[in-house]
Amino acid sequence: MSHRQRIEARADLNCFTTVLETPVAEGEGPLSGTTFAAKDLFDVAGHITLAGSTINRDTLPPATQDATLVARLKAAGSVLVGMTNMDEYAYGFATENAHYGPTRNPHDPSRLAGGSSGGSAAAVAAGLVDVALGSDTNGSIRVPASLCGIYGLKPTFGRLSRAGVFPFVHSLDHAGLFTRDPALMAKAYDAMLGPDSRDPVCSKARAEPVSPALHAPLPPLRVGVLGGFFAQGAAAEAHEAVAHVAQGLAELGCTIAPALLDGASQARSAAFCMTAMEGGSLHAANLRARPLDFDPAVRDRMLAGLLMPADLHLAARRVRRIFADQARAAFAQFDLLLSPATPCSAPQIGVPTVEIDGQQVPVRANLGMYCQPISFIGLPALSVPALCDTPLPIGVQMIAPAWAEARLLHVAVHLHAHGITGTRPIPSPPQQDPAP
Amino acid sequence: MSHRQRIEARADLNCFTTVLETPVAEGEGPLSGTTFAAKDLFDVAGHITLAGSTINRDTLPPATQDATLVARLKAAGSVLVGMTNMDEYAYGFATENAHYGPTRNPHDPSRLAGGSSGGSAAAVAAGLVDVALGSDTNGSIRVPASLCGIYGLKPTFGRLSRAGVFPFVHSLDHAGLFTRDPALMAKAYDAMLGPDSRDPVCSKARAEPVSPALHAPLPPLRVGVLGGFFAQGAAAEAHEAVAHVAQGLAELGCTIAPALLDGASQARSAAFCMTAMEGGSLHAANLRARPLDFDPAVRDRMLAGLLMPADLHLAARRVRRIFADQARAAFAQFDLLLSPATPCSAPQIGVPTVEIDGQQVPVRANLGMYCQPISFIGLPALSVPALCDTPLPIGVQMIAPAWAEARLLHVAVHLHAHGITGTRPIPSPPQQDPAP
Repeated sequence: MSHRQRIEARADLNCFTTVLETPVAEGEGPLSGTTFAAKDLFDVAGHITLAGSTINRDTLPPATQDATLVARLKAAGSVLVGMTNMDEYAYGFATENAHYGPTRNPHDPSRLAGGSSGGSAAAVAAGLVDVALGSDTNGSIRVPASLCGIYGLKPTFGRLSRAGVFPFVHSLDHAGLFTRDPALMAKAYDAMLGPDSRDPVCSKARAEPVSPALHAPLPPLRVGVLGGFFAQGAAAEAHEAVAHVAQGLAELGCTIAPALLDGASQARSAAFCMTAMEGGSLHAANLRARPLDFDPAVRDRMLAGLLMPADLHLAARRVRRIFADQARAAFAQFDLLLSPATPCSAPQIGVPTVEIDGQQVPVRANLGMYCQPISFIGLPALSVPALCDTPLPIGVQMIAPAWAEARLLHVAVHLHAHGITGTRPIPSPPQQDPAP
Repeated sequence: MSHRQRIEARADLNCFTTVLETPVAEGEGPLSGTTFAAKDLFDVAGHITLAGSTINRDTLPPATQDATLVARLKAAGSVLVGMTNMDEYAYGFATENAHYGPTRNPHDPSRLAGGSSGGSAAAVAAGLVDVALGSDTNGSIRVPASLCGIYGLKPTFGRLSRAGVFPFVHSLDHAGLFTRDPALMAKAYDAMLGPDSRDPVCSKARAEPVSPALHAPLPPLRVGVLGGFFAQGAAAEAHEAVAHVAQGLAELGCTIAPALLDGASQARSAAFCMTAMEGGSLHAANLRARPLDFDPAVRDRMLAGLLMPADLHLAARRVRRIFADQARAAFAQFDLLLSPATPCSAPQIGVPTVEIDGQQVPVRANLGMYCQPISFIGLPALSVPALCDTPLPIGVQMIAPAWAEARLLHVAVHLHAHGITGTRPIPSPPQQDPAP
């Protein structure tokens, strides 16, 4: 089957907003032989960057230039096959888009793929592409990676270029990627590394390729399993996944100990507020001029953000500085921290709550609860798919100190090679009616 | 006369909030033989840091440690003789303090010394100390330096330690200094340079002493005289001062040309808003609990700031980035930019407006109009006292690229040596009644 036929065969998943008619020819390079998709907030020359909205579709001209990361993947030989569905303006953990419909989880199409980079994650999980680009402001890569059972990397803030990426929250937006295989993730990451004059934030980013050292023996890392906030409100499968990965790391020679990161709950609240305020500020003109054209869930939170006082923004920034200090202290003791990536595996589409610990809690807000504090302080994090006995996939969030992506990928390669993490088989798609 | 007698003889100027009974003994070092004063928001061990307020006086314990800059001046041999009057919490351009009274201008005690570091500027101008520490958030060093006819340096944001300095606006506060002689300013600046583990912002600041090269010949600098915003709303004496210094620089071999910095008006507005918001946020608890204990002029602006929406704070930050780009572009063409430091020389105390270009304009807000855009983007600026035929002193703001304090001081030393800038004689104090 061609790429396009494979994608069409899984139209039921609703991964793509655009499938390219004539993908660019395969190039020469380290990613030759692979395909990729880009979340539909990466510019692709000649196409309108929808960012999950109809407002962009109706008001923006087509992009004149590829986003830097799209261009770099192409230059490394990968073939772009399409753009993927997402929560409107990246504001959500569900990819239940009011305009373009929900993206469905390949492991159970009645369930969420997670968001906001849900289309990218589901496309990788279903084998429709090898690599997909996503963005992560509060967890939008790690959440769908967890629910779709694949690897999802959110690098350090400022590591990968955001040039040509439709913005959401300037100080929290990260570009990153999904794969089924951490060694391919490392290759694609290496291909995208390096400074970019089009993005002031990463204009001086270092480019230290991670692939060469990936298969070296794993040093005896000091691994902390986060308790406190990061162990509360999680369903049994999330605890099981963390214990499984911790046990696997112990077998690989790491030392495992309990760890704490005080202030995570405040950091999460502050991330919520900052997101609403900065997102609202970014879209203020359209919120005033054409509020009914927004996805209602997005609009109402942004309007709330617009009405928050400046004092709250400043308080959020203070909370961030304090929590960053906590994390620095934790990394004096540990090389790696573990937490669940999501508090549960994929919930049902259209069901607003999920039962955790006997309580019904709201799905949308809680899926990112363990991711939000980490992106808030810009640390690199990789969601790895635990291969344990849970009925559905679920991810474990591995967190490293700033700029230590190489450590995350090194660990992931070893976990993958030992079958501690990895992808699960995808159930067969529903039988399509034969053409009449 | 002793230091203390000199200060008491000019009690009419109301420069000091505290005169030290027993100043520390003179030390050995490059500043041996000099005295200094500190604006009363620098910690001095054993004293309450008033910051111009009664709230601090009634609620704070005495400081346990000197502010870093105070300690460094002492270590260089200078003698601390007292702490100086200021606008409450550094929020003002007048030093008309509702609790501690106005500081009077040594050149005409019926006039303002400017603010918020007015006590420090007046004490230096009156010859009561050789060096004084000030802080500058929107112009609080450059404005009183201009009105009192002395040199006032606001270094690059992050250059000098703020450890032990009572804060106002985190991202705009700068510590700096006043002298009557730019060579002494350079020596004192050198003595205060260098990283400080107590201040994260300057923890990696470079320490490049400026004194050694001060007397080298002046290179033929490209000097831009700012037009547009920086030439509007200024009284005749301000234009005269800028023309005088520009002419002097031409005679010293510099090339002089008109320059523009677009966006200065927006930058000033944004600095106003950010100041009110961040100042209000810092003092929120006291504004709620004991509003009547604030200076009314300070309280009302901070309350307004507390009510501003987060959107406005974000907009102010965007304006800052854009204006910083404008400045970078200007410094591709010029080595130094000139503007008036204040739109007029010292206004009368207690008079809310001043006549400029035939219009009555509010004094308090407008005194810093040419300073605000520059501190907003953290550039170093030095107010030099023009020696021309204006009836009262007035300063010219010299602006350099980030980290180019050495250039500012080098130019100032040459201007001073050639009599283009410098201090004017102070009129005799009013005759005191003999003791009964």
